[in-house]
Amino acid sequence: MSARFSRIGLVGRFEDARVADSLAEFARELLARKLTVLAEERAEPGELPGEVVRVPSAQLARAVDLIVAIGGDGTMLYAAQLVVGHPVPLLGINRGRLGFLTDVSPTEMTASFDAVLAGEYESDVRNLLTARLDRGDAPGLACHALNDVVIQRYETGRMIELATWIGGRFVNSHGGDGLVIATPTGSTAYALSCGGPIMHPHLDAVVIAPISPHTLSDRPIVVGRDCEIEVRLARRATSPAQVTFDGSLLGDLDVDGRLIVGPARETVTLLHPHGHDYFRILRSKLHWGRSAREVDPEA
Amino acid sequence: MSARFSRIGLVGRFEDARVADSLAEFARELLARKLTVLAEERAEPGELPGEVVRVPSAQLARAVDLIVAIGGDGTMLYAAQLVVGHPVPLLGINRGRLGFLTDVSPTEMTASFDAVLAGEYESDVRNLLTARLDRGDAPGLACHALNDVVIQRYETGRMIELATWIGGRFVNSHGGDGLVIATPTGSTAYALSCGGPIMHPHLDAVVIAPISPHTLSDRPIVVGRDCEIEVRLARRATSPAQVTFDGSLLGDLDVDGRLIVGPARETVTLLHPHGHDYFRILRSKLHWGRSAREVDPEA
Amino acid sequence: MSARFSRIGLVGRFEDARVADSLAEFARELLARKLTVLAEERAEPGELPGEVVRVPSAQLARAVDLIVAIGGDGTMLYAAQLVVGHPVPLLGINRGRLGFLTDVSPTEMTASFDAVLAGEYESDVRNLLTARLDRGDAPGLACHALNDVVIQRYETGRMIELATWIGGRFVNSHGGDGLVIATPTGSTAYALSCGGPIMHPHLDAVVIAPISPHTLSDRPIVVGRDCEIEVRLARRATSPAQVTFDGSLLGDLDVDGRLIVGPARETVTLLHPHGHDYFRILRSKLHWGRSAREVDPEA
Amino acid sequence: MSARFSRIGLVGRFEDARVADSLAEFARELLARKLTVLAEERAEPGELPGEVVRVPSAQLARAVDLIVAIGGDGTMLYAAQLVVGHPVPLLGINRGRLGFLTDVSPTEMTASFDAVLAGEYESDVRNLLTARLDRGDAPGLACHALNDVVIQRYETGRMIELATWIGGRFVNSHGGDGLVIATPTGSTAYALSCGGPIMHPHLDAVVIAPISPHTLSDRPIVVGRDCEIEVRLARRATSPAQVTFDGSLLGDLDVDGRLIVGPARETVTLLHPHGHDYFRILRSKLHWGRSAREVDPEA
Repeated sequence: MSARFSRIGLVGRFEDARVADSLAEFARELLARKLTVLAEERAEPGELPGEVVRVPSAQLARAVDLIVAIGGDGTMLYAAQLVVGHPVPLLGINRGRLGFLTDVSPTEMTASFDAVLAGEYESDVRNLLTARLDRGDAPGLACHALNDVVIQRYETGRMIELATWIGGRFVNSHGGDGLVIATPTGSTAYALSCGGPIMHPHLDAVVIAPISPHTLSDRPIVVGRDCEIEVRLARRATSPAQVTFDGSLLGDLDVDGRLIVGPARETVTLLHPHGHDYFRILRSKLHWGRSAREVDPEA
Repeated sequence: MSARFSRIGLVGRFEDARVADSLAEFARELLARKLTVLAEERAEPGELPGEVVRVPSAQLARAVDLIVAIGGDGTMLYAAQLVVGHPVPLLGINRGRLGFLTDVSPTEMTASFDAVLAGEYESDVRNLLTARLDRGDAPGLACHALNDVVIQRYETGRMIELATWIGGRFVNSHGGDGLVIATPTGSTAYALSCGGPIMHPHLDAVVIAPISPHTLSDRPIVVGRDCEIEVRLARRATSPAQVTFDGSLLGDLDVDGRLIVGPARETVTLLHPHGHDYFRILRSKLHWGRSAREVDPEA
Repeated sequence: MSARFSRIGLVGRFEDARVADSLAEFARELLARKLTVLAEERAEPGELPGEVVRVPSAQLARAVDLIVAIGGDGTMLYAAQLVVGHPVPLLGINRGRLGFLTDVSPTEMTASFDAVLAGEYESDVRNLLTARLDRGDAPGLACHALNDVVIQRYETGRMIELATWIGGRFVNSHGGDGLVIATPTGSTAYALSCGGPIMHPHLDAVVIAPISPHTLSDRPIVVGRDCEIEVRLARRATSPAQVTFDGSLLGDLDVDGRLIVGPARETVTLLHPHGHDYFRILRSKLHWGRSAREVDPEA
Repeated sequence: MSARFSRIGLVGRFEDARVADSLAEFARELLARKLTVLAEERAEPGELPGEVVRVPSAQLARAVDLIVAIGGDGTMLYAAQLVVGHPVPLLGINRGRLGFLTDVSPTEMTASFDAVLAGEYESDVRNLLTARLDRGDAPGLACHALNDVVIQRYETGRMIELATWIGGRFVNSHGGDGLVIATPTGSTAYALSCGGPIMHPHLDAVVIAPISPHTLSDRPIVVGRDCEIEVRLARRATSPAQVTFDGSLLGDLDVDGRLIVGPARETVTLLHPHGHDYFRILRSKLHWGRSAREVDPEA
């Protein structure tokens, strides 16, 4: 079974000294296990053991059986972009604070990894969104998002007004700071700050959450994952909106543009040690079970 | 095709004079079309034309091909309880103000009904929840809910603390006024007042929304429709909670009790005139498109 | 200066063994300092040292210079009711978990108390609300609230509709579960769960927060402390609403009734050890500074 | 009494044809009443009657007794900037849709204005905030805000983290999209979209509302108007935040900068026709009294 994962890619922000240390330490552990270790070319030489093979970022997924990302959830979003379209699973190791996606703690990383090598893990397949910015008749390039596609104003002091269609039917015009279109995975990220619900990771759904909406009844809408969602600027708009996917820039939505968001065929697979419990992570991340008010009010 | 609906049941609050008038007027229209018209026994004689056949409420669904409910969404919830387990669709006529479920206006009721008789309508199948209050080993009676199952405190000035499990996994303990477990149909009713999202009616999902939660991060969770949700009082609780389904009393949840909520096999079918548009109803009910702030702020 | 506080009243829930132990321990410390110690008659004999003087609850405030409450914020609300109209300050000792009002921890209670005896403390004067339930022309009895006055439904499954006036001007009708009218002190209690803002304790203001409102734009309103707020049932109401103050029952608001809420002349004074910091308590109680999302998202 | 207002300044967006027409029409009415009419130089000649005196924007307030603004609330914010420090009141005329600040409808504008000339009006004094962006030891220029001071991120996809002090005491660090610091007047504008409360216009208070906060318990705080509020970037920040007042750019808040917000000595006076009712405007703007759920649920 351990034959399954013989070429391991390491991903993380080498700029962060703490992360770089963890990556180097983990690389040595992997090499000691006679595994082939790869990293992105952009990692500085000298940071990792010399045996680590450096490849261009775009080739990493093709060259490995598994990617281990060390850092926060942002690092996992980055790693997800690397593996889209490749059958390479991700294992996320945090730097001391539990993440929604990086659920292995640094103190357990070696033990957890050995368990994974031994085939003891749970596979957790996450759905992705695709987004495409069309301008007039010209279809734009498509991107994939594990968390969310965000449309927002980026000029001073003016609200934007967006119009939405779901499955070809007009839904609403939304005045405010923009919209978040999030997967269940992304429902605990920016969408949650915008008043969206928590969605179980395996729910076949997408949430469209308005950002600081002017109309107070403009509430998040949850629709089926298969829906095609279209967003345009309302006609009166004078300035473009900015579209990002998982925090990276896709482009500007202007008066002639259309943003099309829909289900991706591709998925991303997370590996977890046995005993992984989504609700336990939720409780920990959201400080549940600790109330600001006294739990038993008295006489 | 019109043969399909030859026996029509009329449901509404006869106590409300305006509703009673509409029911009587509509009954005369149906009788003029040579249809058989039935109503619940509890309707006062004299209110409806003499040709209307009165049957006990519990027998109405078995005796008709279609139920027409006149009133508000509450009347539709009542009618849904009558037809659970019977292949009898519902047509909802409002009393002048659009409802989420009663989408036919009184001025169009005759024309809409004739269209339905002619087979020109859309069928809209809605999922239901089942709920069961077990006490110790004794399973309680099950009920069905089209909108929601609500667990709430009903004694003065004390919060309750509920514990939840989804699919056998512990989720959280919730201090506050209670929980709403709502279908997509119910997502625009009480759950929306509790901060829950709007869910498209045909989404295979359920939302669990805390009512006035003490912990501010205790947010609504959307899970798959097939999940079994269990709710218990946390141990320290001193007073029972009250459980209702679609606004009707199921019973008390006490320290030994368990509330089990899950998907129902049964469904309820709504009929709509052609051109029915869920998002148009949402826009109208939620006053969308009218912002409190000026839409185009100026210099 | 220590002459100032020579007769000390002890308040707490003797039913709770942990609290009773702390009260007895603290009483012994006070007696060792040659202070006169008093407690409510309802405290079981034998729980406290024999030298403790027992008086009826209603006479405690007249007989002491200072009341020390041990427990949670609920105990402080109870103690506040005892001292309304008397120039007796309150010192709140929690049972291990910081409270908004009980800010002295049990491990520091002796040291903090000695500092208070030595005149080293900060006085923190809190405003109260008065509430009066009138029926027809008959004025009802008035009560005082340190936290809030709550008007809520208490019958199954129906919303109530309340109408409000501020300073004689009609404000709104509120369909939903009720209203919370809270002082700044109460703004971090139930009102916060209802979407109300945090108000600094010394702000001359009151918040009116709707509970699970049907209309999503029915938002909390903050008005000046001197405003007279009137609440009535809207005409169509069929069942009364319940009115509570600081969690205790005032009575029912029925169709003929009027609830009048306004500023109280009386105040309650809390004593804090030097170094008391309201914002530090807020940060601790609300788990601020710990975000569910990663604080520094990465590449 | 009419002698009081003999020189009238007209303000509005001449770029908007509808507004320009109203301004021209209103100017003719004023001239017919033998009043002196002034406008900003930037208004195109030809748009207004030739008798209208054009002056540079910065001199308008010194040259008039009253400013009439025609447009939306944004136009009133602009007019407020013109009159800060001058004893010139403002009268706001909307273009057909009631504004919070522009409460006179176009159909009543002549009658309302004649009433004002006859001394029949209510004066409504609104408080302002001042804001100053200091960098290191260098104090920046101060601005005034009738609505709000907003600190927000303006680079792609990264949250900012701000730290706040009130009266010199540390309050919290806020991860998210930024902060709104709003007057009561501004409480119904952007702050309301961010979950802030409605504050009565004459309340001596300010609200600090986080924009899409990461920490769900990071709620709006209402403090006294006299508080000095300081905002800085938390150390880890890598990109500056943008500061705006009433929608206009003040500048960037960078790692060395400090934003100081406090009460302004200056005020702005709005004139209203008799019968002005703040709560009526609230009800109209927020669509109160119209519930998404049926007000009387039925059997």
